[in-house]
Amino acid sequence: MWIIQPENRRYLSGFKAGDGQLHESSGSLFITVDQALLLTDSRYTIQAQEEAVGFEVITHKEGAVNSLPEIFDRLNTRRLGFEGGYLVWDLYEEARQRTSNHSPSVELIPLSGVVEGMRKIKEPEEVELIKKSAQLIGDVLAQVIEELRPGQVEKDVAWRIENLIHEKHADGVAFPLIVASGPNSVLAHAIPTDKTIREGEPIIFDVGTRVDGYCSDMTRTIFLGKPSSYFRDIYHIVREAQVSALESIRPGIKSTEADSIARDIIKEAGFGDFFGHSLGHGIGLAPHERPAVGPLKPEVLEEGMVFTVEPGIYIPGNGGVRLEEMVILEKDGVRVLTTNENFYSF
Amino acid sequence: MWIIQPENRRYLSGFKAGDGQLHESSGSLFITVDQALLLTDSRYTIQAQEEAVGFEVITHKEGAVNSLPEIFDRLNTRRLGFEGGYLVWDLYEEARQRTSNHSPSVELIPLSGVVEGMRKIKEPEEVELIKKSAQLIGDVLAQVIEELRPGQVEKDVAWRIENLIHEKHADGVAFPLIVASGPNSVLAHAIPTDKTIREGEPIIFDVGTRVDGYCSDMTRTIFLGKPSSYFRDIYHIVREAQVSALESIRPGIKSTEADSIARDIIKEAGFGDFFGHSLGHGIGLAPHERPAVGPLKPEVLEEGMVFTVEPGIYIPGNGGVRLEEMVILEKDGVRVLTTNENFYSF
Repeated sequence: MWIIQPENRRYLSGFKAGDGQLHESSGSLFITVDQALLLTDSRYTIQAQEEAVGFEVITHKEGAVNSLPEIFDRLNTRRLGFEGGYLVWDLYEEARQRTSNHSPSVELIPLSGVVEGMRKIKEPEEVELIKKSAQLIGDVLAQVIEELRPGQVEKDVAWRIENLIHEKHADGVAFPLIVASGPNSVLAHAIPTDKTIREGEPIIFDVGTRVDGYCSDMTRTIFLGKPSSYFRDIYHIVREAQVSALESIRPGIKSTEADSIARDIIKEAGFGDFFGHSLGHGIGLAPHERPAVGPLKPEVLEEGMVFTVEPGIYIPGNGGVRLEEMVILEKDGVRVLTTNENFYSF
Repeated sequence: MWIIQPENRRYLSGFKAGDGQLHESSGSLFITVDQALLLTDSRYTIQAQEEAVGFEVITHKEGAVNSLPEIFDRLNTRRLGFEGGYLVWDLYEEARQRTSNHSPSVELIPLSGVVEGMRKIKEPEEVELIKKSAQLIGDVLAQVIEELRPGQVEKDVAWRIENLIHEKHADGVAFPLIVASGPNSVLAHAIPTDKTIREGEPIIFDVGTRVDGYCSDMTRTIFLGKPSSYFRDIYHIVREAQVSALESIRPGIKSTEADSIARDIIKEAGFGDFFGHSLGHGIGLAPHERPAVGPLKPEVLEEGMVFTVEPGIYIPGNGGVRLEEMVILEKDGVRVLTTNENFYSF
């Protein structure tokens, strides 16, 4: 199998380099039953040799696809599995030419989601890093919320979070941080703005970091001073939806059912049209990975999976509330990895 | 044409949202001779309406590919151009099923690099933002180099750069910043480490920011105290290679020839094996974009293109030197956009 997706590559080899952009691969793995090659270029040779234990590192000079014939000869390849969810059409076509021109010919076989499927169930070492990552972001957020005062600017608060993440020696943010107040809080992917944070309005913090590659992701919605009764009601509906899901999810449940548990509560409260995203998503080396935990793609939730539970209600022009925990699914149900329950009391 | 690549999408529509991950599109453009649609989901509807002037925004609920038949009906589509350099194989296959099942049938046509080709030549408004971005990172780097003392730690210096970028209200870094000293400087894509910076060793700063989406990218190699004569010689060879390229590049030259100008000087000096990367790369909304400026893909350099000129020599186990300017190609030759010539005197 030919592996180019950065997290899959890291998961299987230990080689930590990312890809600068989609077309700037830092390396390919070629894995057979008894051989493991890592093909890279001179920028990454040293790093690959240090990190990819058990892999033979080969340095190419003219691009990975141009090196395919050499790899085929070396590995006596007749069938080449590729990542259909990552290989772009142009590269596929180039690879197809190399494989069909090769003698003996090589068959290209899409193996989409194979490594992603392996990544779904976390190993104990992975769980340890994920726990550290969740703990760290929880501590940072607790400190920032304690410091928060009306008049602070979203962008500056987000930057304060980044600084605290840096001070605690994490790898950096897991995704662009969200600090979104008042009307901005309705944008599920809000970019922090120059807006001043005010009393009484909902303030959404959606934040995460990486520890040795492993991501965390948590969301809290808070109010400085008292929320209106309107937002207090919304908050309690979202929290009820979240707690119901957290209490009901068991190994063997379909992810679409998990989504429904929370979604039905929001629908019944009359806000079904204002919860436009999925209940959650898997998380690990990537901030979003399998399993999908939404209304569309049923996937059986299993012991050892790590995912988020994050219902929300967003009233356009007014404000939104989202609450997100990261959990690991254990034998008897989920264990919440993100902390600071006390954010929930007001 | 169906546009999903984030920078292409922004370039054509003004819609600024990025994609969280490869499979998390924030939207698709569908552009015909007389119509322009932006298909997105509820997370981005408001932002798309605000930013994509002239586009009709459509919100889908079940994924872009599932909405293709509806788009085909609305636009009376018979042929659909797609970005072969960005659409992954799985999505292509899904789209192919939708197009072949549709009545009347729709032909899928790879149009790779079409928008990227448009982006190569910068409009005056783009040049203004690129200049601001280059000026800003030059100012930041000048300050950090002035503050630099032996004993500082690579990671902390890199973080100082990020803080200054933030203070100056840029969008953030254009790519993971490089602060690499001594032996670390041989890694072309070094990640800042806990290593302490020492006197006499080469220290590479490869830094860039974004201003309203537009990237800058510059590299300086400096020494605290005096470099050894070995590194002084290497430095002057790299600088000579760079200056020769800067002085010789004219509209109409092939990018591979531009690369040769610098590479030949490094080869003649006996360091040909230690310059493993390309001379440069185009830059704009993406930190690396067309034109390619390396030894492999000949591309005619034209007036209005913006790219980097960044030769380097890296001695494994010892240290490296890289010098990088961002330039715009004008009628009579290149104009350097990155400043602080004074870094070159020691």
